[in-house]
Amino acid sequence: MKAIAVTREERDLRVVEKPRPEPDAGEALVEVLRVGVDGTDHEVIRGGHGGFPEGEDHMVLGHEAVGVVADANGTDLEEGQVVVPTVRRPPNGTNEYFERGEPDMAPPGEYVERGIEGGHGFMAEYVTSPAEYLVAIPEELAELGFLVEPASISEKAFELAEAARSSFEWTPESAFVLGNGSLGLLTLAMLDDAGYDDLYCAGRRSRPDPTINVVDALDATYVNTEETAVADFADAYDPADFVYEATGYARHAFDSVRALAPNGVAALLGVPGGEWDVEVDAAAYHREVVLENKAVVGSVNSGVEHFEDGAETLQSLPEWLFDDLVTGVYGLDEFEKAFVDDETTIKTAVEFTTYEER
Amino acid sequence: MKAIAVTREERDLRVVEKPRPEPDAGEALVEVLRVGVDGTDHEVIRGGHGGFPEGEDHMVLGHEAVGVVADANGTDLEEGQVVVPTVRRPPNGTNEYFERGEPDMAPPGEYVERGIEGGHGFMAEYVTSPAEYLVAIPEELAELGFLVEPASISEKAFELAEAARSSFEWTPESAFVLGNGSLGLLTLAMLDDAGYDDLYCAGRRSRPDPTINVVDALDATYVNTEETAVADFADAYDPADFVYEATGYARHAFDSVRALAPNGVAALLGVPGGEWDVEVDAAAYHREVVLENKAVVGSVNSGVEHFEDGAETLQSLPEWLFDDLVTGVYGLDEFEKAFVDDETTIKTAVEFTTYEER
Repeated sequence: MKAIAVTREERDLRVVEKPRPEPDAGEALVEVLRVGVDGTDHEVIRGGHGGFPEGEDHMVLGHEAVGVVADANGTDLEEGQVVVPTVRRPPNGTNEYFERGEPDMAPPGEYVERGIEGGHGFMAEYVTSPAEYLVAIPEELAELGFLVEPASISEKAFELAEAARSSFEWTPESAFVLGNGSLGLLTLAMLDDAGYDDLYCAGRRSRPDPTINVVDALDATYVNTEETAVADFADAYDPADFVYEATGYARHAFDSVRALAPNGVAALLGVPGGEWDVEVDAAAYHREVVLENKAVVGSVNSGVEHFEDGAETLQSLPEWLFDDLVTGVYGLDEFEKAFVDDETTIKTAVEFTTYEER
Repeated sequence: MKAIAVTREERDLRVVEKPRPEPDAGEALVEVLRVGVDGTDHEVIRGGHGGFPEGEDHMVLGHEAVGVVADANGTDLEEGQVVVPTVRRPPNGTNEYFERGEPDMAPPGEYVERGIEGGHGFMAEYVTSPAEYLVAIPEELAELGFLVEPASISEKAFELAEAARSSFEWTPESAFVLGNGSLGLLTLAMLDDAGYDDLYCAGRRSRPDPTINVVDALDATYVNTEETAVADFADAYDPADFVYEATGYARHAFDSVRALAPNGVAALLGVPGGEWDVEVDAAAYHREVVLENKAVVGSVNSGVEHFEDGAETLQSLPEWLFDDLVTGVYGLDEFEKAFVDDETTIKTAVEFTTYEER
C-alpha cells in the first residue's frame, strides 16, 4: 500500500510503498478516507516537533484521519463503520493514564503520538489501531471526519476551561480566539455554536483575506495584531471572558491574561519552540490574576470523549463554514498541494479514497 | 466604645473613641472578642493597600474578627451566638455578585472591604453587620475564631484549584506552600489535614526559627529560598501537584508553574505592589503549561461557605499548632504589641473581651 512519509535522512515528504498492516488481536484494520494537514504536520516535516519511530528511517505523517473499518478482526467494531482514530498510544505496554482513558493527561515520555512523535501516522491507504482508540462517527461525517481531531482538541480545552470556573457562577459571553488558522477559525465557529455573544479573532493578516472572511461571516470581530496587540485588546475592545490561544506566540502566555475580564479563563494550546526571553511586569501580572480571580489552563491532545463531543459539534455547524474552511482536498497523485501553506490556504486534506468508492 | 484605627493624616494606629454602632434593620450588633492581625493590616497601615471610608479621617482596622451576637435585632441570629463576619460588603446598594452570594468573585470597584478598603473594620468593642455576613461558628472556636477568616481564604483557593482539575482524575499527593507567614503555615496544616503526603514550605529564613519549627512539626520539608529558588524547586526536590503562593513575590507567578508536576495547579494569592519587570523565558513557560496540562488560578477573598469550611477545618487541626502559631494575644492597653512583626512573631490578635467575661 501507499503512504506519505517524512524521511529521516532527507527530511522530505514522499510517497512510500509499505506492506498493508495486519491487525493484531484487539485491533481493527481501517481503510483511510482522508487525512487533514495542520501546523503540527508542517513542524514535523521541518523537524521542529516529535521524533521518528524507533529504528525506522521514515515516519508516516498524519494524525487527523477518518476512515472505514475494513476488518473488524473480532473487535466490537463493525465493518463499514466510519471511524476516527485518536492520536496517542502507550509507549511500552500501558500506563495509568491510558488505563483510565485519559491519554491526553499523560506527561511527556508516557505516550507516543501517531504521526507526530515516535509512531507512524495515518496518511496511508490502511492503518491498524486497537479498537478502543477508534471513535465511531456518523456516516454523514465521512467527508469531514478529518476535522473531528482538531475539534476534539478544542472540546478538551473548553472542558478544562469550564471546569476551572465551575466552583462559582460563570456565564461567559465573550471569547477571544488568538489565531486565524484553521484551528482558530474552527474554534471560533464552535464558540459561536456554544452561544457566545461576542466573538473576537486575532491574526496578523490584512484584508482582503479568506480567513478574515470566515471571521466576518461568523459575525465575529477581527483583531489585526499588527494594529492592536493582544496586550492592548482589553482597552481597545472589551476584555473577554474566555481567551483561546492557538498561535504558540510565546508572549501570549501572559498577554492572554491581560485580555481577560475578571473571573475569566485563558486556555493555552499553542506550543512555542526554543527559548524566548521577554520582559514582563510580573507584579502587574500577578496582581491581576489574584485580584480578578483569573485562571489559565494549558491543554494538549484529547481523549475519546472529546472526539465524540467534537463529532457532535461538527454536525451542528453550518455547511458554508466547511466550504470556506476546507480550501483543498487532494489525491495521492497531487498530495504535495495539501502541504502548500499560502495565503489562500486554510485547511487541506489528502484523500486516499472516498466512502462511496472504497 | 473604643476602636483601633489608622488615621488619614498621620497614618498612625491609635485607639479612638466612637459611638457604639446601632444595628439597622437586618443587621445584628456583635460584641467583638478578638481580631487577628495579618500582612494586609500592615500594608493598610503603610498605606500600600486599600482606601479610607468616604468622608472619614480614620479607618477602623481589622478584618479577622470573632465576636458574640449582642443584639440579634430581629434577625435569624441568636444572642450569645459566636460569629465571624465576612469582609466584603456591596459598595452602593448591591450587585449581582452579592445577590448570588459570591462577593469574593466581585471585581475591583464592586465591593468595599471592611478594614481594608473603603469600610471600617472590626477592631472595635462592637460592630454591626447584616446578618447574612455573620457566619455562626461553634462556641469552642470563640478563642481561635479569628483564624476562620484566613482559613476561609485558603478554602476558597483549594476550591478553585480543585475545580480547575475536576475534568480528569486528579489525586494530588504533594503540595508546596510559598510563604512561611501565618497564612502559609496555617495552609500547610490544612493541606496536611486534607491528606497530602508530601508537603513543602518555602521561606527566606534560616534555622533556628519558630516558623521553621512549625514546618518541621508538620513533617513538611522547609525550603530556604536563599539556597533553593522556587524556580529550582522541581529539580532539587520533586515537582508538586499543588503550589500555593502566599508571598506576593512577583516572580512566583511564573516560578510557581515551574515547581508544578504535570497536570498540577498553582493557586496565586499574594498581591505584589507596584511594577516589577522581570525577564522570563516565555517560550519555555508557555510550552510547559500546554504540554503538561498545567493550570494557574488566582484567588482573592472568600465567601460565607468558605468561612463555614474554614471553621470546620480549624476544628480538626491539632491544638499544638495553634499554641505554636498564635504567638501573642494582647488587650487594648497593649494593642501595639499585636503589630510588632519580628522574628519571634507568627500570628497575633487584639483581644477586646473574652467569651466568658463579656
